[in-house]
Amino acid sequence: MAPSTKPFLLYTGPTPNGHKVSVYLEELKALYPNIDYDVEAINISTNRQKEPWFIALNPNGRIPVLVDRSRDNFVVFETAAILLYLGQHYDKDNKFYFDPVKSPNEYSEMLQWIFWAHGGVGPMQGQANHFQRAAPEDIPYAKKRYVDETKRLYGVLEIRLANRDWLVGSGSGQLSLADLNVIPWVRIHKYAGIDSIDEFPKVKAWLERTLERAPVQAGIAVPPPSK
Amino acid sequence: MAPSTKPFLLYTGPTPNGHKVSVYLEELKALYPNIDYDVEAINISTNRQKEPWFIALNPNGRIPVLVDRSRDNFVVFETAAILLYLGQHYDKDNKFYFDPVKSPNEYSEMLQWIFWAHGGVGPMQGQANHFQRAAPEDIPYAKKRYVDETKRLYGVLEIRLANRDWLVGSGSGQLSLADLNVIPWVRIHKYAGIDSIDEFPKVKAWLERTLERAPVQAGIAVPPPSK
Repeated sequence: MAPSTKPFLLYTGPTPNGHKVSVYLEELKALYPNIDYDVEAINISTNRQKEPWFIALNPNGRIPVLVDRSRDNFVVFETAAILLYLGQHYDKDNKFYFDPVKSPNEYSEMLQWIFWAHGGVGPMQGQANHFQRAAPEDIPYAKKRYVDETKRLYGVLEIRLANRDWLVGSGSGQLSLADLNVIPWVRIHKYAGIDSIDEFPKVKAWLERTLERAPVQAGIAVPPPSK
Repeated sequence: MAPSTKPFLLYTGPTPNGHKVSVYLEELKALYPNIDYDVEAINISTNRQKEPWFIALNPNGRIPVLVDRSRDNFVVFETAAILLYLGQHYDKDNKFYFDPVKSPNEYSEMLQWIFWAHGGVGPMQGQANHFQRAAPEDIPYAKKRYVDETKRLYGVLEIRLANRDWLVGSGSGQLSLADLNVIPWVRIHKYAGIDSIDEFPKVKAWLERTLERAPVQAGIAVPPPSK
């Protein structure tokens, strides 16, 4: 079989961090004819992401990792860094990416909300998942701590969305990487022990609005279930 | 008293996240004659950062927050977003900031390491601090979980620094925002219950090399102790 000529290779798994990248790749694919990617599913339950060949790609040993075959196999790890890399190099019409030179203030606001989610929603909801589902002991204090913090963070989104549709952009905003970077986490709130987000109506509407998009649905189906 | 004419106002406190920004501001001040900033210390023990006037600046209710008086009082929250904002607009000679257009690959690597620390070292070491020092119960499982994860992350730094002096840049690298973004956390490892970093000799040397710098020392003395 000839080597793939698709421009990207994505090492990923069916997690919110994996889905952030596959959702954006699907959005780009729907917009630009030159975008396509191969997927290599990494089974994190067998710790394949800790093997030496993977550590050489990402010393942190985590999915997702993007390899850009069209730029000399440049390797990018950390979900948010992958999103920004794709935005800079491939979202030429700035559909989801605010350009630092053309739109410096929106670019900064996009970074602010991306970092806010990357240091808050991701790790804290991840800890809620752990203490709800994986920890070998039942520790009520830790369960409550991380569910409460995740809900506090959803409350911050609710404040931001009070008078706008999307996190960043003038007027009511525009769907951008700031939204795509956090939607896959909010989507799986039940998994973290948050049964309902009815107390955050703006967040709920924003989530539903985003999940209706065909590329978003395609992205969260990556990788396909293994046979 | 006339209003201050210093270009920046920094709301901050004596924490690693506060110090990341004050260290970079001190480095910029030492390089560029037009950089100076006022400091407003926020006493987080009295929850001043949760007051409505502060939430209007940062809906997440956390320090630090930067106000750029020279750009129409533009507000930036999230430490790493503040660093990148300062780099883009004020580090004109690219001493610590890799420009996305001139150095796209180094720019991406800088983002990768900044996100790595922002989603890993900061939140996980912060949880170690909490269970070592603040939690109302002694929970050995959680103490061990977060100290172990913080040490794993230091091990990732050790891998990266195996054959280079700084996290990003060609050859042995150059001191950049990638380093300044994580050094203030590694500096206070003892506070998180990690008594020694002797098992990470490259990290230890990198930390010491950075802490020798006069602007770094000035930055970690911000804000001055209250009278």
